[in-house]
Amino acid sequence: MDNFSYCTPTRYIFGKDTESQTGTLVKEYLDNPSKILLVYGQGSVIRSGLLNRVKDSIGKQGIDILELGGVKPNPTDDRVYEGIDLCRSEQVQAVVAVGGGSAIDTAKAIALGTIYDGDFWDFYAGKLPATKALPIGVVLTIPAAGSEGSGNSVITKKEGMHKISLRSDYALRPKFAVLNPELTYTLPPEQTVAGVSDMMAHIMERYFTPTQGVEVTDRISEGLLRAIMEVAPIVLKEPTNYDARANIMWAGTLAHNGICGCGKIEDWVSHFMEHELSALYGVTHGTGLAVVFPAWLTFMAHHKPLRVKQFAMNVMGVTTKGDDLSVALEGIEKLKMFYKSIGLPVTLKELGIENPEFDELVRKLHENKGDIIGGYYRLTDKDTIEIYKLMV
Amino acid sequence: MDNFSYCTPTRYIFGKDTESQTGTLVKEYLDNPSKILLVYGQGSVIRSGLLNRVKDSIGKQGIDILELGGVKPNPTDDRVYEGIDLCRSEQVQAVVAVGGGSAIDTAKAIALGTIYDGDFWDFYAGKLPATKALPIGVVLTIPAAGSEGSGNSVITKKEGMHKISLRSDYALRPKFAVLNPELTYTLPPEQTVAGVSDMMAHIMERYFTPTQGVEVTDRISEGLLRAIMEVAPIVLKEPTNYDARANIMWAGTLAHNGICGCGKIEDWVSHFMEHELSALYGVTHGTGLAVVFPAWLTFMAHHKPLRVKQFAMNVMGVTTKGDDLSVALEGIEKLKMFYKSIGLPVTLKELGIENPEFDELVRKLHENKGDIIGGYYRLTDKDTIEIYKLMV
Repeated sequence: MDNFSYCTPTRYIFGKDTESQTGTLVKEYLDNPSKILLVYGQGSVIRSGLLNRVKDSIGKQGIDILELGGVKPNPTDDRVYEGIDLCRSEQVQAVVAVGGGSAIDTAKAIALGTIYDGDFWDFYAGKLPATKALPIGVVLTIPAAGSEGSGNSVITKKEGMHKISLRSDYALRPKFAVLNPELTYTLPPEQTVAGVSDMMAHIMERYFTPTQGVEVTDRISEGLLRAIMEVAPIVLKEPTNYDARANIMWAGTLAHNGICGCGKIEDWVSHFMEHELSALYGVTHGTGLAVVFPAWLTFMAHHKPLRVKQFAMNVMGVTTKGDDLSVALEGIEKLKMFYKSIGLPVTLKELGIENPEFDELVRKLHENKGDIIGGYYRLTDKDTIEIYKLMV
Repeated sequence: MDNFSYCTPTRYIFGKDTESQTGTLVKEYLDNPSKILLVYGQGSVIRSGLLNRVKDSIGKQGIDILELGGVKPNPTDDRVYEGIDLCRSEQVQAVVAVGGGSAIDTAKAIALGTIYDGDFWDFYAGKLPATKALPIGVVLTIPAAGSEGSGNSVITKKEGMHKISLRSDYALRPKFAVLNPELTYTLPPEQTVAGVSDMMAHIMERYFTPTQGVEVTDRISEGLLRAIMEVAPIVLKEPTNYDARANIMWAGTLAHNGICGCGKIEDWVSHFMEHELSALYGVTHGTGLAVVFPAWLTFMAHHKPLRVKQFAMNVMGVTTKGDDLSVALEGIEKLKMFYKSIGLPVTLKELGIENPEFDELVRKLHENKGDIIGGYYRLTDKDTIEIYKLMV
């Protein structure tokens, strides 16, 4: 096991009707602000009445509310600059996101940039670490990104469409996150399963590690993956099944708050490869991951099979005796079958990409991430093109 | 799943040589104090040189150190009063424990009582909730109690020998915990296995719940239990196996920081029953739990078997087909075999108690905890005497 430093300070308020506590949570956990910025998405929180309920709850505490609505998926830097200007000119003291990853990540970037003298993009460009920000609160509506419990934020620079993930140890972790599974009842199936794929990927990116002796983190990760695969089909059949929605929501948080990464090197190549698919073909991130991960696993089954075999046995329930490769491959087939069973694509063709531009994908991948990438197994462009080709 | 509110703000600094960071951690996470109280146990931290290393590290930051040493297992209120007097008269601003549960729990009680106008016992007597305390830091040497990551503290009132467990949501959670597995290399086997039994019990007390639909928390708990049972025999065979010690240490923290209790009613009867054995016969807490838990499980197998069956299959690996009772009982046998294999007793006789005073145990149990006890299944004195008798 590797040395690590780990802290998850977010107060999780989980359950039915919890959004009605938002006002008191803002007061208690965001340092009693007199004025906050509310960041939200494209309308579903308005249509559902949630935004008004949250505003009422905050307003009752005598706190002034400014708004930045209409944040889109794959959120961009222009909205962040807009939010920072607003926060600075209006002396906003805290930021609350209502929505999913896009609203939360935008809120985080605004919270970071408002109290920084320079350009907030400096942090995303890696020029300096993110160590302080305005306090952030979250009312979550889409379980997938895990941003409600993580110190991460992904923003796309419109100029050049660079999508960059920033990871802070502490500063960007929300002070509180309201998690009401009922708010996810109306999520359409395609968004639900994209979220399932995304949270599974967050666990698997951490699971595949060269680090030895991490039994505790391994068993937690395997258990979380099995729990997600148990309840995902229930959510699809019964979208208003509270317990199933609750398990998916809580799993999404734990998948990305760092508990599955304690004491080990992580991988993250599948995320990098998917980001290129999203950039080039506008693929939904979680959906794309269902295509990337089996291909990446297949490559690994042939090159470094031991953990893939462990995954096959402990997560996918493979009990067949056999050599490492055959057990690993059987596990990958079972994973694909699971993805298909909940309506996810597992090939580029099923994603609607008939003639993939492999050279371009690989060129951009390594341009963005370096010549050799990956924590579990180090990959060159010769390897990554092979993995992309396994997706057809 | 039940509604819950959950927050683990402790910064875990895990790994080799991490105790050398204590000084900077005190400065950063305990609000930059000029004077702290160092609480420790009965000499092993002195003999090993650890205490001096910690003092050097804190001293280098220009922080004054007062000391309260010699804290004993099952720590008592007299040492707490002593610490409170010291902290008040010397205007101490933070408390650091070096040791295991006894040192940490004493430090917590002192941190709580120092800034409270009345008698610190008011909190343990349940007269008011623990909502604020001096900031607390920990350098852990014995993984078992889980106090380094929990908001709990167990103190015994010398007058009447009342051992009371206080649970705070937040105030008593340490701000940082230094976890260096190497510091546990010298733990004697009997203390190592008592710790293993204690941390397993912390998970099982939470696992046995009447709450439905808690798949995520269930799978995490099962995984943690399996990880502990995997590495415990390695630790016994190779006391200086770093990875095995590291997994035990991290498991001990996660067993009790609340992650295994999210969204559910917990049980805790086995702890209550063991506390009476400890009080009457001076049994080591973790050792006693290895006797109590199989008996409690056996009673449950006959009265409410479903979760015991799930435990048998998902934790103990029972694959035999059969009715709920027989599968449950097979799981309990396997648990006993595990305990025996690492040298733990599983009967009162093996604990050295030849003629147990059942009536007295039951009388004190219900006097302390109420007429009907237990979260998984409600027990009267007719039930609890039956469970004690299953331990012979």
